Amino acid sequence: MTHKERLEALRATLGQHGLDGFLVPLTDAHMSEYVEKADRRLEWLTGFTGSAGTAVVLGERAAIFVDGRYTEQVKAEVDPALFAHLGVPATSPARWIAEQAASATRIGYDPWLTTRSFLARARAEAPAVQFVPVATNPLDRAWKDRPPLSLAPAIPHPIGFTGEAHTSKLARMGEAIRAGGAELAVIAALDSVAWAFNIRGSDVPRTPVARAFALVAADGTATLFLAPEKVTPDLVRHLGDTVSLRAYADFPAALGECGDCAVLVDSATCVAAIHDALEAAGARIVEGRDPAILMKACKNPVEAAGTRAAHVRDGAAVTRFLAFLDAEVPRGTLDELSAEAKLEEIRRESNLLRDLSFDSISAFGPNGAFPHYRSTPASNRRLEGNSLYLIDSGGQYPDGTTDITRTIAVGQPSPEMKDRFTRVLKGHIALATARFPRGTRGGQLDILARQHLWAAGLDYAHGTGHGVGSYLSVHEGPQRIAAATGAPGIEEPLQPGMILSNEPGFYKVGGYGIRIENLVLVVEDPRPGDVEPMLAFETLTLAPIDTRLVEPALLSRAEVDWLDGYHARVRETLSPLVDEATRQWLERATAPLAAPLSAAA
Amino acid sequence: MTHKERLEALRATLGQHGLDGFLVPLTDAHMSEYVEKADRRLEWLTGFTGSAGTAVVLGERAAIFVDGRYTEQVKAEVDPALFAHLGVPATSPARWIAEQAASATRIGYDPWLTTRSFLARARAEAPAVQFVPVATNPLDRAWKDRPPLSLAPAIPHPIGFTGEAHTSKLARMGEAIRAGGAELAVIAALDSVAWAFNIRGSDVPRTPVARAFALVAADGTATLFLAPEKVTPDLVRHLGDTVSLRAYADFPAALGECGDCAVLVDSATCVAAIHDALEAAGARIVEGRDPAILMKACKNPVEAAGTRAAHVRDGAAVTRFLAFLDAEVPRGTLDELSAEAKLEEIRRESNLLRDLSFDSISAFGPNGAFPHYRSTPASNRRLEGNSLYLIDSGGQYPDGTTDITRTIAVGQPSPEMKDRFTRVLKGHIALATARFPRGTRGGQLDILARQHLWAAGLDYAHGTGHGVGSYLSVHEGPQRIAAATGAPGIEEPLQPGMILSNEPGFYKVGGYGIRIENLVLVVEDPRPGDVEPMLAFETLTLAPIDTRLVEPALLSRAEVDWLDGYHARVRETLSPLVDEATRQWLERATAPLAAPLSAAA
Repeated sequence: MTHKERLEALRATLGQHGLDGFLVPLTDAHMSEYVEKADRRLEWLTGFTGSAGTAVVLGERAAIFVDGRYTEQVKAEVDPALFAHLGVPATSPARWIAEQAASATRIGYDPWLTTRSFLARARAEAPAVQFVPVATNPLDRAWKDRPPLSLAPAIPHPIGFTGEAHTSKLARMGEAIRAGGAELAVIAALDSVAWAFNIRGSDVPRTPVARAFALVAADGTATLFLAPEKVTPDLVRHLGDTVSLRAYADFPAALGECGDCAVLVDSATCVAAIHDALEAAGARIVEGRDPAILMKACKNPVEAAGTRAAHVRDGAAVTRFLAFLDAEVPRGTLDELSAEAKLEEIRRESNLLRDLSFDSISAFGPNGAFPHYRSTPASNRRLEGNSLYLIDSGGQYPDGTTDITRTIAVGQPSPEMKDRFTRVLKGHIALATARFPRGTRGGQLDILARQHLWAAGLDYAHGTGHGVGSYLSVHEGPQRIAAATGAPGIEEPLQPGMILSNEPGFYKVGGYGIRIENLVLVVEDPRPGDVEPMLAFETLTLAPIDTRLVEPALLSRAEVDWLDGYHARVRETLSPLVDEATRQWLERATAPLAAPLSAAA
Repeated sequence: MTHKERLEALRATLGQHGLDGFLVPLTDAHMSEYVEKADRRLEWLTGFTGSAGTAVVLGERAAIFVDGRYTEQVKAEVDPALFAHLGVPATSPARWIAEQAASATRIGYDPWLTTRSFLARARAEAPAVQFVPVATNPLDRAWKDRPPLSLAPAIPHPIGFTGEAHTSKLARMGEAIRAGGAELAVIAALDSVAWAFNIRGSDVPRTPVARAFALVAADGTATLFLAPEKVTPDLVRHLGDTVSLRAYADFPAALGECGDCAVLVDSATCVAAIHDALEAAGARIVEGRDPAILMKACKNPVEAAGTRAAHVRDGAAVTRFLAFLDAEVPRGTLDELSAEAKLEEIRRESNLLRDLSFDSISAFGPNGAFPHYRSTPASNRRLEGNSLYLIDSGGQYPDGTTDITRTIAVGQPSPEMKDRFTRVLKGHIALATARFPRGTRGGQLDILARQHLWAAGLDYAHGTGHGVGSYLSVHEGPQRIAAATGAPGIEEPLQPGMILSNEPGFYKVGGYGIRIENLVLVVEDPRPGDVEPMLAFETLTLAPIDTRLVEPALLSRAEVDWLDGYHARVRETLSPLVDEATRQWLERATAPLAAPLSAAA
């Protein structure tokens, strides 16, 4: 079917539902960022493959709404004759619907794919529009060859990686549920379920989760809702008698059994159908944060040791790739897609890589100016001439999740490129070396990474740091380092054990992109003479930063010392783990700057 | 009357009102920070002279609630046998009442001294307590010798200082009122009224405002409510026919005439009685910010030029004082109170000083460790031995309001004192030299001032910068530079024309206090090569920073350059304005550090 035929097939079903239009979000019943094939309704309908977007289909018109990251991608992927390309927050699905419809309109939504907070905003923006839940999704009926849901097994994740038994985690969650005034909590986010029950899966690409819901009780017992096909004897043994297993399909019925109960529901991760079912059952809904989220974010010592090991392994792979790049680029054979494939190939050679942690961003020259670029055969560029190559990638290992960006000189970088790269590096170092009192939030630290760009009238239009899971989501909350007012997570105090990215950048449209990204671990940092209890970051990621792009005159002595010290650590840690050619390259790539005493601040 | 007699007199009236207790806040009907004598109910009742606090009087018990700034002061001023000394936010008046009273209790409040937001919080914290408005304040009946309200004239403030006619300001406010969906706005904050009508007064110490309410209409006309005794022919001429004058006492009746009208009310500055009267009249209340607040914060070019002139004049006075200090301290005659008096005397010699802008903080040695210290004959210390003297003071001049803190070496400062002073100075410089894109909020910049203290495990427990008025309040909103989550104003974007303080500090309890405070003006800062529209700070305050307290090895070259450049500007600007002895002292005090190239970051 063409996209035109798909759109018409969906339109044809609307009349039967008594609807004037339908909302097609990009998510699943767990509000996931990455969704499995059977849930890629937006991609099926429109062709859009980005990770955030919504379509609205009306009788005559249709539109797709994406944020600034996907302006270019939507042009490449979605036929504008079928779907108008619109940007949020300049407009919104609800405001657009209100503008299209002269009179009151009935717009359907799937309550299993839509949160109440989305609906509340939509109803406020379009008071004349009726938003109507559908019992069955009309798109699913139009999608004749919709793939089946994944039935991959849910696999116990060993205590040697998790560091805490699921019974202990469930008991802690139970205490939090009781403290929050509830008797039961709905856990809908797939990474929360995976963390709480120490299970992993392979239903969703790039994130090792198993499709499941859970109900956790204040006494630390729980019910896990999993497709029966996903349940193995191993899993049953692992879960033990604290956890009851029920079919995934039984979850709505189980909500109906929660009458007279105070149920904790997180409106950010629970869809409207969950609220609806609980209310219909007579349950009392207690709004609050999924208790797993903060616990999961604060890694225990076993998880911290695991992520360190994963970063050594991943760093060796990235270093082999960087040595390969420097050898191959002069031959003129490499392009974005082949480079990306080579890096994945090297990562897989460790035999421990379970998956990439996200689709790599392999971007040369002007393509690097799109922070969320993804190379396609149509956009693919050869690495040649004088410019910058940006590679943002990561791996899922059983002991940890990695995410690293390096920017590499191809040919002779210009003085402007070196100036910008060095300012980004200064910001990266300022954040990497920050000490801060307990209670400090990510939003307070953000300026450290931007200040040297600001001094030159420059900036970057994305956050500075996101949370990272432990063999889980490469983007996890609640913590975040960012500048935007109201950005979720910037008010969350940083706590020991949290992992964040440190990734300032600079983007020149039509020119090039620069980003330097390491992951860091929040650690306690007591030192003699301290009056306040202090925290700091331990840099986890290990791979050379391209010194050919550094302008030493812009660095302070302390910054040079940091870079040389980091490179010494990279060299000493990785040299024993790489082949001889890479070892020789690494020796050169991590040589001290040996800069003269700097006159700059 | 003793405080015991006053407390008993208030208690005696409660029964007649059918009350079990009464709330005594520290404010007036305009939610002012500094209040005139007739409104100092809390001071009359308890003896407390700080600028924030609340008392609760019950039949058997009474308590006073102050924040951490006033923990020591309340001990010195308030008899604990009469009033328990309690700290907020550890407890709160409402929570304390709820703990005291086994059964439901009726607690009176004066609706002209209490906001609805205070009442909402109190009712949430103490659901069993009834908070009851009183028609007449029982404390005022017990206060037999209560002074009369000030009847000082309201004086037109010339266009040469304000830069914009009040008719133009009222027209702009009218547009904002209409844009906010209202027809009329209540202006209750005294500095908003003073700014909007270009009037000043002398009802309240330290802030040149006149006691008045105003109603401003969407068409730019307005009614000003002033005691008739305060109205002069000059004022009537100044106000012209856009402004109707009514008696201050008519204000409640005028609210009663607002039926069928949409009225903008700012709950932060309007007391509950205003809401009550409007609701009783049938008006529709539109909650929103007083439209004068942001306009007043963004100084126009005439106000900016005025504040620069005021800072030159004030800087010359402070510099004379600092030269005097250095000459007098070795003689051993100076103490905190005599030094403070001398500075006021020198400031008054300009003949342009209208008042101090706040009560000076003149603190030697351990007294400096209290950021809001105020010297009394009991606490007064002689400036002797080896320690630090901190003087935080400011003036009200017709062209501008100043606020400056200097910390001065007395005897030989210890290496620790120099280390701390230099870290505070580095933070001060980092903020003074920051460039930032339009849209940046004060909360984002705060860490610049703290980072070098944090590096040593140190911090300070107050904000970094407050707004400052133009011959108005020394503390004004909405902008603010601070770290605390939810601190008012930290989410307010900084805009050209805003004046802020830049005042990092360090406090060692039992030891000493350090603070370096200059006022800065937000200015546009376009430079060649900028991609983003950038803002920066222009430092307004001109007076030497004590280089005897600087440890040059801790400064970067850029920091040394800033300090030397600042001192050159101070010297060149002030030398022509001071006597010969001060000029010679200034020459030495502003000599370049001539530090060797620094090895520090």
